[in-house]
Amino acid sequence: MSENHFLHGFLNPKSIAIYGANNKGSSLAGLQLMNLIKSGFNGNVYPIHLKLDSVMGFKAYNKIIDVPEIPDLVVIVLPAKLVPQVFKECGEKGVKKIILISGGFRELIGDRKNTITKEINNIAKEFGIRFIGPNCLGVFNNWGEDQNQSFNIFIWENLKRSKFSIASQSGTLSSHIWFDPPNLDLGLSRSLSVGNEANIDIVDCLEYYKDDKYTEIIGLYLEEIKRGKKFLELAKQITPKKPIVAIYVGGTKAGNRALQSHTGSLAGNSRIYKGVFKEAGIITTDYVQEFLDIAVVLSKGILPKGKRLGIITNSGGPGAMIANNAEKHGLVVPEFSESLQLELKDVLPPTASYKNPVDCTFDMNLPYFYVKLPEILMKSGEIDVIVQYGVFGWEEALGEYLKYDQIAQNAEFQQQPDEVLNKLAQKLLQPTMANSQKYTIPILYVNPMNFNSSWSKKLRKNGATLFKLWDRPVNCIAKICEYVEYRRNH
Amino acid sequence: MSENHFLHGFLNPKSIAIYGANNKGSSLAGLQLMNLIKSGFNGNVYPIHLKLDSVMGFKAYNKIIDVPEIPDLVVIVLPAKLVPQVFKECGEKGVKKIILISGGFRELIGDRKNTITKEINNIAKEFGIRFIGPNCLGVFNNWGEDQNQSFNIFIWENLKRSKFSIASQSGTLSSHIWFDPPNLDLGLSRSLSVGNEANIDIVDCLEYYKDDKYTEIIGLYLEEIKRGKKFLELAKQITPKKPIVAIYVGGTKAGNRALQSHTGSLAGNSRIYKGVFKEAGIITTDYVQEFLDIAVVLSKGILPKGKRLGIITNSGGPGAMIANNAEKHGLVVPEFSESLQLELKDVLPPTASYKNPVDCTFDMNLPYFYVKLPEILMKSGEIDVIVQYGVFGWEEALGEYLKYDQIAQNAEFQQQPDEVLNKLAQKLLQPTMANSQKYTIPILYVNPMNFNSSWSKKLRKNGATLFKLWDRPVNCIAKICEYVEYRRNH
Repeated sequence: MSENHFLHGFLNPKSIAIYGANNKGSSLAGLQLMNLIKSGFNGNVYPIHLKLDSVMGFKAYNKIIDVPEIPDLVVIVLPAKLVPQVFKECGEKGVKKIILISGGFRELIGDRKNTITKEINNIAKEFGIRFIGPNCLGVFNNWGEDQNQSFNIFIWENLKRSKFSIASQSGTLSSHIWFDPPNLDLGLSRSLSVGNEANIDIVDCLEYYKDDKYTEIIGLYLEEIKRGKKFLELAKQITPKKPIVAIYVGGTKAGNRALQSHTGSLAGNSRIYKGVFKEAGIITTDYVQEFLDIAVVLSKGILPKGKRLGIITNSGGPGAMIANNAEKHGLVVPEFSESLQLELKDVLPPTASYKNPVDCTFDMNLPYFYVKLPEILMKSGEIDVIVQYGVFGWEEALGEYLKYDQIAQNAEFQQQPDEVLNKLAQKLLQPTMANSQKYTIPILYVNPMNFNSSWSKKLRKNGATLFKLWDRPVNCIAKICEYVEYRRNH
Repeated sequence: MSENHFLHGFLNPKSIAIYGANNKGSSLAGLQLMNLIKSGFNGNVYPIHLKLDSVMGFKAYNKIIDVPEIPDLVVIVLPAKLVPQVFKECGEKGVKKIILISGGFRELIGDRKNTITKEINNIAKEFGIRFIGPNCLGVFNNWGEDQNQSFNIFIWENLKRSKFSIASQSGTLSSHIWFDPPNLDLGLSRSLSVGNEANIDIVDCLEYYKDDKYTEIIGLYLEEIKRGKKFLELAKQITPKKPIVAIYVGGTKAGNRALQSHTGSLAGNSRIYKGVFKEAGIITTDYVQEFLDIAVVLSKGILPKGKRLGIITNSGGPGAMIANNAEKHGLVVPEFSESLQLELKDVLPPTASYKNPVDCTFDMNLPYFYVKLPEILMKSGEIDVIVQYGVFGWEEALGEYLKYDQIAQNAEFQQQPDEVLNKLAQKLLQPTMANSQKYTIPILYVNPMNFNSSWSKKLRKNGATLFKLWDRPVNCIAKICEYVEYRRNH
C-alpha cells in the first residue's frame, strides 16, 4: 500500500509551513508559494518570516513554535548556514517532514570543508525527521482530491493528469521539461526532485512508486545511485509490470566534473551502470527529447508485441529513412508476403509500392490512406507496429490558397467549416484506433506540419500518437521494443 | 559563372507551359500552378489541356504547338504512358527544358519491363532537351528580381531568403521539411528535387551550386550517386569553401528495398559511401531534424575555431547532460584555468559552480547571465563555442501568476509592457552578439519554453541561435566542429 509509505505524506500534506517566502513574487520561495496557491491547495499555509506579519495574503509567523498546529510538511528556502538552526526548531515543534530546497551543501566550498549536511543529518536523526533535498526543486502531485486540485511546489504549468511519475536528481528534469505542455501529449502523475539525497533518495522513490496506483510508468534522472543493490532489486521487481525510462549522466570526464559540482556526486563507472540498467530492464537514453518521447508512447499504453515494423507513407524519402533507421536501431522491416502484396496492390494507385514501406504516392484517397491500409497491415499478422508518414492537414496545405480569392473561385475551392473537418478526423481516425485495439497493433503518425496546427490537433484529439518529424518515433519504438523483449523473459 | 550553367534557366524562366493542371485545385498540378502564381511569377503561363479553354484564369492551349512562343520551361504532371508523346511535341516546338514531375517510370511494373525512361531519354537526346525528374516535385528559387518574388513550383510556405540550397532525390526532403517555418530559423535559397535522375542528377546540381553566389551552404538527400568519381571530385572542390550536409539513406536491407521502390536506385555499399563523404568533408546525418539543425547553425555563419565547449547554465542537470553528451560526441569540455575560475567566482553567487559547466544557479541576475558571463568566457581564450541553458522568458514564467489578480497585487507584481521587454531583450542580447563577433566565439541558446513564446521570439529577433531542448545543439555543433577540422586541413 503506497498510502502507508512515508513519501505519501510529502505529496498529501494538510498543512504546510514555508521558510523563505516573502512578498517578492520573483524569489524562488515566492514563486513556490504562488504555485501552491495556484494548485488549489486547501490546507493551512504558514509562512515563517522574521519580520513580516503577512506574506501573500497569509498570516506570517516569526518562529515555527508560534504556529498553531504541527505542520504536516515544512518547506525551506534559506541560505545553507541558517538551515541547521531551522531544522532544530522544526524538530522541537514536532515536524517530521521537510523539503529542503536550498543549495550550498556541497562537500567543499572552495577549500573549506562543508559540514552542514552532516549537522542537519544528525538533527534529523535526533528528531525522527525525514527530508527531501538539499538542492532540490520540490514535489508535485497531480492526484489531489478533485480534478482541479494538485499539490505543487515547483511547476509553472497546469499539466493534465496521467500515470507517468518522475524521480529526479535534477530539478529541471523533474519540472522544466513541461514548460511547453501544448507541444507535449504527456501529463504527469507525481514528481519528486530529490536533489543531493542527504536523507531521501531515488531508491525511496522507486519503493513508493512500485505500489502506487497512480504510477504506471516511471521516469528517472540519475547522476549517482547511492544504494545500488537495493536499486537493482527494486527495479527488477518493478519493470516486469511498470516500465522505467532513465537518463543517466556520467561516464565522461566533463560529465563527472559537472556532477560533482551539481549534487556532489562522484558518479561512477558508466559500464557498471549500463550493466545494472540492462539487468533491470530499464530503458535508457542520453536525450531529454527521447526521454519524453518514450514516456509519451508508453503513457498511451503502446507496447508492440514484437519488432516488426510496417511503414505507410505517401512520400518515398521519409519511407526510406524510416526503414533505414528502423533497421539500424534493431527493428525488423519485413518484406511483405506475396499474398499481402497482392492485397495491397489491389487498393493502391498503379505507381505505388507495397513491399514495405507501402508508398501510396501523393495520389492516395483519404479513407484508404487512414483506414484501409492500416487495417490491411494490422490484420495481416506480418507486423507488430506501424509508423505512418504524411497525415497532412489538407485544409492547411490548401488553406494558403484560399487567401487568393480569385484563384480559389476559379479552382472551385471551398473552405470547409471546422465541424466538417472535425467529423472528417473522427471518420478517418476512429476505425483505425479501434482496429489498433482489436489487433493490438500500435500506430504512430507523422505530420511535418506544426504540432498544434488545426489538423494535428484534431488527430491528437482522436487518439493519434503524433510526431512532427519521422526520426523520433523510430528510435523511440526501437527502445520500447527492447523493453518488451525483456519483459517477455521476466 | 553559375548564370551560364544550364540549370540556371530551370530556376529563372520567363515563360512556362504546364501539362496536367486543371481547375481542380486539389490536384498536384493545380497546386503547383497556384504555387507559381503565389510566388509572384510574372512571366507568361501556358496551361496545356486537351479540353479546357481556361485554367485558373490563364488561357489554355490544346497543344503546345499552338502556344505563341517557345516556353523557356515545360512542367509535366501526366500519367507516364502519355509522356513520350508529350516530349516529342515539346521537342518539335523547340522546348529545351522540362521538369517531369510524374512517377511511374521505375524499371519494373510488377513483372513487366518499363521502357518509358529509355524512350524519353532518346527523344530528349534527339531534340537536345535537358530534363529534371521523373518522379520529382519541382524546383524552387527564392532569389527572384525582388524580395516578393520567387520561382516556386512546389513549396507551400513563404520562406525567407537565405543562402542555403538543396538538391534532393526526395521531393519531401526538398520541400515538406519547411512545412512549419515559424518553428525553424532557416530560410532557403534554391531547391532542386531531382527525382529518378534520368537526365539531370545530383552532380549537375553540385556543379551549379559550386559557383552560385546565392548558395553558401548545400544540403543533399541521397539514395544513390550515379557519377561517383565526378561527385567526389566536385565535393572536394566545394567543401573547403561551402559546407555540404547530407542525408544518405542506404546500407540496410529494408532501406535498400525502400530505395528500389522509390527511385529505382540500387543503392550501394554504405561503407563506400561513408568513405566518399569522409574524403570529401561532407557532414552526414541519419536524421532530418539534425540535417535542419546543422543547416540552421551553418546558415548563421557559425564555424567554431575549435572543439572546446564552454557551458553556461542555471540548472545543474542540463549542464551535466550537455557536458556528458558533448564529450561523447567528440567535443572537449575543458576544466577552466585557476585564473578564469577566480574571475568567474567573483561575479557568481556563492552556491554557483565555475569549473565548466558554469552553473549560476537560479539566483543569477540577468545582465550577468546574458552579458557578463559569456563575455568572460569569450575573451578567456579557453573555449571555442558556448552553449547556454536557461534563457527563460521571465514574463512567461511569471505571467501565469498575473492571472491571479489578488496574489499579484499582494506580491507587488507588475506586468511589463511589450516594449519594455523588447528593450530588455536588446540590452541583454546585443552586447553578447557583438562580443561573439569580436572574439569569433559562437553562442547557442536553450530555452525549454515554446520556440514561439514571446521571449523566445525576442531572443531570435536579436540574433540568438535558439534551441528548445539541450540535446540538439550539442550533437549539431559536434558535427560542425569535425567539418571545421577537415576544412583546416584542406
